[in-house]
Amino acid sequence: MVNNDLITLGHGSGGLQTKRLLDSHIFSKLNNDYLRKADDGAILEMNGKAVVSTDSFVVSPFIFPGGNIGDLAINGTVNDIAMCGGIPKYISLSFILEEGLAISSLDLVLDSINHAANESGVEIVTGDTKVVEKGKGDEIFINTTGIGELMEGCQLGIDRIKDGDSIIVSGNVGTHGIAILSKREGLEFETQLKSDSTNLNQLVNGVLNEFGKDIKFLRDPTRGGVSSTLNEISQSSGLGAELNQIDIPILEEVGSACEMLGLDPLYVANEGIFVAIVSEKIGTKVVEFLRKEIKGKDAALIGAINQDLDSKVVLNGIIGGRRVVHMLSGEQLPRIC
Amino acid sequence: MVNNDLITLGHGSGGLQTKRLLDSHIFSKLNNDYLRKADDGAILEMNGKAVVSTDSFVVSPFIFPGGNIGDLAINGTVNDIAMCGGIPKYISLSFILEEGLAISSLDLVLDSINHAANESGVEIVTGDTKVVEKGKGDEIFINTTGIGELMEGCQLGIDRIKDGDSIIVSGNVGTHGIAILSKREGLEFETQLKSDSTNLNQLVNGVLNEFGKDIKFLRDPTRGGVSSTLNEISQSSGLGAELNQIDIPILEEVGSACEMLGLDPLYVANEGIFVAIVSEKIGTKVVEFLRKEIKGKDAALIGAINQDLDSKVVLNGIIGGRRVVHMLSGEQLPRIC
Repeated sequence: MVNNDLITLGHGSGGLQTKRLLDSHIFSKLNNDYLRKADDGAILEMNGKAVVSTDSFVVSPFIFPGGNIGDLAINGTVNDIAMCGGIPKYISLSFILEEGLAISSLDLVLDSINHAANESGVEIVTGDTKVVEKGKGDEIFINTTGIGELMEGCQLGIDRIKDGDSIIVSGNVGTHGIAILSKREGLEFETQLKSDSTNLNQLVNGVLNEFGKDIKFLRDPTRGGVSSTLNEISQSSGLGAELNQIDIPILEEVGSACEMLGLDPLYVANEGIFVAIVSEKIGTKVVEFLRKEIKGKDAALIGAINQDLDSKVVLNGIIGGRRVVHMLSGEQLPRIC
Repeated sequence: MVNNDLITLGHGSGGLQTKRLLDSHIFSKLNNDYLRKADDGAILEMNGKAVVSTDSFVVSPFIFPGGNIGDLAINGTVNDIAMCGGIPKYISLSFILEEGLAISSLDLVLDSINHAANESGVEIVTGDTKVVEKGKGDEIFINTTGIGELMEGCQLGIDRIKDGDSIIVSGNVGTHGIAILSKREGLEFETQLKSDSTNLNQLVNGVLNEFGKDIKFLRDPTRGGVSSTLNEISQSSGLGAELNQIDIPILEEVGSACEMLGLDPLYVANEGIFVAIVSEKIGTKVVEFLRKEIKGKDAALIGAINQDLDSKVVLNGIIGGRRVVHMLSGEQLPRIC
């Protein structure tokens, strides 16, 4: 049965309607001991060092091929925790809903949140729900903040990167951004492309377990794409990066769409891959390790850190030629996550 | 010098403009070791049990008498941590900015955030900044998620509340809501009223240190006001609450404004007070303790838990008569926090 009820300002009042929305939808969908207490916060067991990360999600449209803002909000924060060397454990969940949102849409998003949280092994421990007037928001925004336990035996940091280190991507580049674009108004090209949004924590924790301190740095190249991530690394480390275009994995339909739209896939957002900078000696071993896993099956070694490049990212083209890949300077695809 | 630059979608791109906004404004205003790393997350030292709480802030207008959304977002989350028996330590900070926001407004909010964080002794350890198109947000929304250390020797929970326990408010009721209303378009009445938005962590931690397990439950009555907080307590505990109107502290100008606008101050939002349910034997001692502190100088014992009231909140009126105070059923004042 479809729920035709709509979100009203009363659902954000803190009174009876808020309580009903929480009890009948949010707590009933995300049923756990933490939330059932309906306290203003949660009490957690923490051992040793904690990793914390926050993200607000404003993706438009909030339902897109391959996912919706709900799983994106869980996976995005889970992945950020993993990139810092953490094992994600707990997550907070905060909604800003626009008056007039169908409660059935909220239910759909809650189901995805629940599924994504279960998949990645995190518990939603506390939350908040606000409502803004129609025209003062855009259907649904979500903030998630994650807390994880720092893995022992890993040591990640841009300051650990050295000349010659290998640059690896764990999968195809640009898929999420093009999937969102394919759904956007006025850009309907023929494609069955789905967002690559997924949790990467088990894969990343596995790599860190296997290779320990030889993994120097990890980052998920979301907004700004692989090029912005590598430019940040180059600028912060004072070392450059050299990439070989022929080695960069990309789905054929993403490549075609980028060509058609005049986009460079290196700038397009990703939600299901990570960039790893690792010791040269383990570069190919890490790729082999990743390729054994479904989420890493398209992993590739795409280049190396090069101290002679003066903090620049340089791409060797497929048909020859070299060019500098800059950081994204303006806005390419707004509201991609 | 006034900064006339405006927020653009490019500031949310994850590329160069994002980096410039972060470096020149956010990191420079909120200068600390955690943020300078510009990682996707932060690594924290945690000992024992942690308290975590999240809130998104959508207050309108975002600058109001006595504060702005920046200090509100810090104080609100700091207070939620304190209400759970935590000593607030770390906070995450996430912005959703509307295209066209003056960067000078963001700077003003950042200054307040910095000041409020310093005052309450929390460090801002990680963050995020998103930008949405003009008309898809409302100038500035903020999420803060706080992490604290659970205090030893305290034991808070609705399940600990018993018949006869004292009900205390730590200060005047309804001030924040009326201050926001006074600023809203079309409701300009004569008042110098300022929001009571402030951090309560030192005051609350002090009370818990002094009285330990005799403090049964704490909650800051924000949205929905004191009546919604007490109704939640009554319904969850299965016990009722009896209040004496004559004992409820309220500023004269708040009382007058409520009368003029037909509002019941018990439903109006607060940001600088808390409700405490404590053992009957320490009721007056807690009030005396609070009144010695500036932030608790108007504290009062306003009633008692009463198991004969069948989960209802009953108010004994100043001029006689008794009435049931229900939970706020609709929306009284949207976007108050």
